[in-house]
Amino acid sequence: MPRGFFITFEGGEGAGKSTQIGRLAESLRADGREVIVTREPGGSPGAEAVRHVLLSGAAEPFGQSMEAILFAAARSDHVEQVIRPAIERGADVLCDRFLDSSRVYQGVTGDLDPAFMRNLERVAINGMLPDLTVILDIDPEEGLRRAGARRSAEEAPDRFEKETLAIHRRRRKAFLEIAKAEPGRCVVVDASLEPDRVATSVLKAARGAIAGETAAAGRRSNA
Amino acid sequence: MPRGFFITFEGGEGAGKSTQIGRLAESLRADGREVIVTREPGGSPGAEAVRHVLLSGAAEPFGQSMEAILFAAARSDHVEQVIRPAIERGADVLCDRFLDSSRVYQGVTGDLDPAFMRNLERVAINGMLPDLTVILDIDPEEGLRRAGARRSAEEAPDRFEKETLAIHRRRRKAFLEIAKAEPGRCVVVDASLEPDRVATSVLKAARGAIAGETAAAGRRSNA
Repeated sequence: MPRGFFITFEGGEGAGKSTQIGRLAESLRADGREVIVTREPGGSPGAEAVRHVLLSGAAEPFGQSMEAILFAAARSDHVEQVIRPAIERGADVLCDRFLDSSRVYQGVTGDLDPAFMRNLERVAINGMLPDLTVILDIDPEEGLRRAGARRSAEEAPDRFEKETLAIHRRRRKAFLEIAKAEPGRCVVVDASLEPDRVATSVLKAARGAIAGETAAAGRRSNA
Repeated sequence: MPRGFFITFEGGEGAGKSTQIGRLAESLRADGREVIVTREPGGSPGAEAVRHVLLSGAAEPFGQSMEAILFAAARSDHVEQVIRPAIERGADVLCDRFLDSSRVYQGVTGDLDPAFMRNLERVAINGMLPDLTVILDIDPEEGLRRAGARRSAEEAPDRFEKETLAIHRRRRKAFLEIAKAEPGRCVVVDASLEPDRVATSVLKAARGAIAGETAAAGRRSNA
């Protein structure tokens, strides 16, 4: 049984991650593949338990390092209980947000030592690096407009929303920098286009990556 | 203000760690140094909180990786809240058990991936490697005899105690292997001798290491 393919989706709010994950899952299943869809934060009972502790504020007095380690514990549980077993039995895993979100969110606040963060990332994923990361790129103003489309027309953007926009711009930039630094793993897809066109680009990237990996595995097994 | 000196004590039960830590603290204070004594597991409120979660069994269903990460969270808190601030303000820290106990205990059970454990160790200590580790070495049979000296004479060693002895022998061997692999950090002291003689050896090792470090720091600042 060949191992499954691990694909993560990243991007700002309103980029259409859930929609595109659903579309890709559908297409890969039509290709005859088994597909698991999951998401972070959470994704497994242990991860949810740790998340509950974090959201309760119980870990807050112990500082940022402790909180970061607890987030890593949650991801580790998600990886070991859900993602790795699925990949090893041959199923593909599509995950809504993964390590790049941590990098970007923590990189934007930037209060933790980078070496500490790198070691923590290694602990959390323990070798389970995504085979492909789809970065759905959209101008944050447009993304927030889409995400807030259900908001009452009477509510105008306030100061907090303007601040948020600046932060979202920094996050977008950080995602694009990751894509540039790791072109073998990441593909940037223009998420401002029609959902059908985005889905076509995502599927093309996924099929290409899967075919490349399958060919490489074949070469390895023939070597 | 020069930084303080970080000394950890390791060894099996009945090796006399508490006694020797007390003796060394006394001697270093007589040398005019500020000394903090602490211990693992625990040692800080955050570490105690995580330890409480671990001892309650609440993390058990989530498996060994999760438990190991939570132990690392406890150590990280102890390092960041207690050890590093003390060292940075110039106080010496004497700690009863630290990273080598984790290595030995987890090495003996051996169920976790070594690369995972190494990354977790890096996360937990975040550069705060002991300047000196005193390994109090004693034959486990003698150590257990000393540790159990208060036990009623009517209680004979049972099957569990025999099993424990075998495990203690493996731990002793593992501590000695660490000392061999890291001679610059570790010193092995024969803990079967009289407490006064052990204390003399420990003090000599500590003063030697502090003098060496002070000289090295002097050379660095003159360079």
